[in-house]
Amino acid sequence: MPELRQDPLSQRWIIISSERAKRPNDFKLRPVETHSKECVFCAGNEDKTPPEIWAYRSPGTEINQIGWWVRTIPNKFPALGIEGSLNEQMNGLHKSMNGVGAHEVIIETPSHQVESYQHSVEQMQEILRMWRDRHLDLRQDKRFKYVMVFKNEGSDAGASLEHSHSQLIALPILPKTIEEEIDGIKRHLGFTNRCIFCDMIEQEQQNLSRVVFESESMLAFCPYASRFPFEIWILPKRHEPDFGLIREDEIRDLGFTLRETLGRLAGTLGSPPYNLLLHSTPINTDIGVSYHWHIEILPRLTKTAGFEFGTDYYINPTPPEMAANSLQNFH
Amino acid sequence: MPELRQDPLSQRWIIISSERAKRPNDFKLRPVETHSKECVFCAGNEDKTPPEIWAYRSPGTEINQIGWWVRTIPNKFPALGIEGSLNEQMNGLHKSMNGVGAHEVIIETPSHQVESYQHSVEQMQEILRMWRDRHLDLRQDKRFKYVMVFKNEGSDAGASLEHSHSQLIALPILPKTIEEEIDGIKRHLGFTNRCIFCDMIEQEQQNLSRVVFESESMLAFCPYASRFPFEIWILPKRHEPDFGLIREDEIRDLGFTLRETLGRLAGTLGSPPYNLLLHSTPINTDIGVSYHWHIEILPRLTKTAGFEFGTDYYINPTPPEMAANSLQNFH
Repeated sequence: MPELRQDPLSQRWIIISSERAKRPNDFKLRPVETHSKECVFCAGNEDKTPPEIWAYRSPGTEINQIGWWVRTIPNKFPALGIEGSLNEQMNGLHKSMNGVGAHEVIIETPSHQVESYQHSVEQMQEILRMWRDRHLDLRQDKRFKYVMVFKNEGSDAGASLEHSHSQLIALPILPKTIEEEIDGIKRHLGFTNRCIFCDMIEQEQQNLSRVVFESESMLAFCPYASRFPFEIWILPKRHEPDFGLIREDEIRDLGFTLRETLGRLAGTLGSPPYNLLLHSTPINTDIGVSYHWHIEILPRLTKTAGFEFGTDYYINPTPPEMAANSLQNFH
Repeated sequence: MPELRQDPLSQRWIIISSERAKRPNDFKLRPVETHSKECVFCAGNEDKTPPEIWAYRSPGTEINQIGWWVRTIPNKFPALGIEGSLNEQMNGLHKSMNGVGAHEVIIETPSHQVESYQHSVEQMQEILRMWRDRHLDLRQDKRFKYVMVFKNEGSDAGASLEHSHSQLIALPILPKTIEEEIDGIKRHLGFTNRCIFCDMIEQEQQNLSRVVFESESMLAFCPYASRFPFEIWILPKRHEPDFGLIREDEIRDLGFTLRETLGRLAGTLGSPPYNLLLHSTPINTDIGVSYHWHIEILPRLTKTAGFEFGTDYYINPTPPEMAANSLQNFH
């Protein structure tokens, strides 16, 4: 019998469909092609990208030259523009404003050959430091209400370039997902006077059936109401709303946890396409409640289709307990 | 400058990104392969599907034999099961219930060669009558709160079988999208004492820049805050919450409008993948407000990726006015 599950945070219902249950081998994918010759993200092609915003590079090397190991540039085809004011307008039913924001690309490695799950732990930590640094920089622009770091890995997850990279968008509005999460946090707080993310950590640690990996400061698990097969969340055990305030020991630990999690995912499923989302508290805004930053990893092994778009519910053919079990046992 | 637009119904923000603007030729797709020999939906293979629930067939022909022109069967791999009660349970943070529901497939034609946009107008009307008949039948089961008809066309839109078909799911819970729409209807009603869908029709008719096709009782247009390039909504001009109560003259008119709309979409973009959603009022439930049934057509020309999943906002590279213009001028 399939099961409906409600995500306690968003109150979204999920169908856990045992009749459609899929195991890792059902998802094995073809290897990705490489096109390193023309890749503008590769070391040596710095002049083929917009000028860099920020880079970690060896002392004595020049900006927009080789010598970097993580490099942030403006997106060449930005979804949002950095100049101007919002200029909110109404026309009958229709509200509009200018698409003010920032859209950056974080090139995660100079080498085209290194896939995201193959970064060294040290490199992963450096990428996280870049995410934090860009977070802290962009909040100085008071027009922005939210900074969203995300990653599209594989063409089925929307990646248009193969070279390992993440993206960052700063928005003048709160994402709908974040508003919903804030509503969920408030609701739970009203009932229990506790943080719902802290309670999730506690419940997963007691149960263990959905835990993928645990390190000193981080917990990686397949959430109870996973929308996607092999969905994984990574939560910091210390309650902290703001990813910008992650501590150095947590960066080190998160780098290790993320490397381990992505490695197991790639090993178990054969480098599946996925989206990674970094959720943090809104900036320059009082939301009246204490958020809890976290990472969501959404493998894209199933197609999002009419049912999902029509209902905002998801059909997930793999129970998270089965996914976690596969990921626990991968070495 | 890109533009942010807020859907007045869901309050979802959309980025209209002029810098990413795409024209129809950017989206041309490869033709679909045919595999008619093994297709279980083809006439003559009736014994290879679960027994039919309902079919329009010639007098004197037997059930589960040839002679039908629209045929409804249970989904062989249903997402929900028809037997049992909900049995709602709580376990700590986690609410669950049984996945009770119906999941049916409506085979839209006996012929494998006819693509969805190639149905005759009469055939399209018969398909709509089947949608209506299944709607009216399933609401007799008082466990169900919602009936959702949808269609996945093309593998990028989630179709696993090529033969023209639509699907129907009956749910014991209200879809999140429908709850959000109901909230939107109530909000607008509170401000204006009017139906927001009726107001949309009026505003689009006055403006005309987003209208694709207008018939006596139906209006097809690209919505102001389209999530997807070439998104099209079809609204009945007569305010009616319930698709089950569509009138016979409206069925005829909708068949014509849908045939014309899908034909123009296919002609303009080369048979793109799309999801079609039929939204109607909840059943066996008092929602305290008067809904307005409608159809949404979501072409899947862009990938839904990290940004969309992280924010529930969408990046749409084609302004709806540009899409409508292309569709208006196609003959």
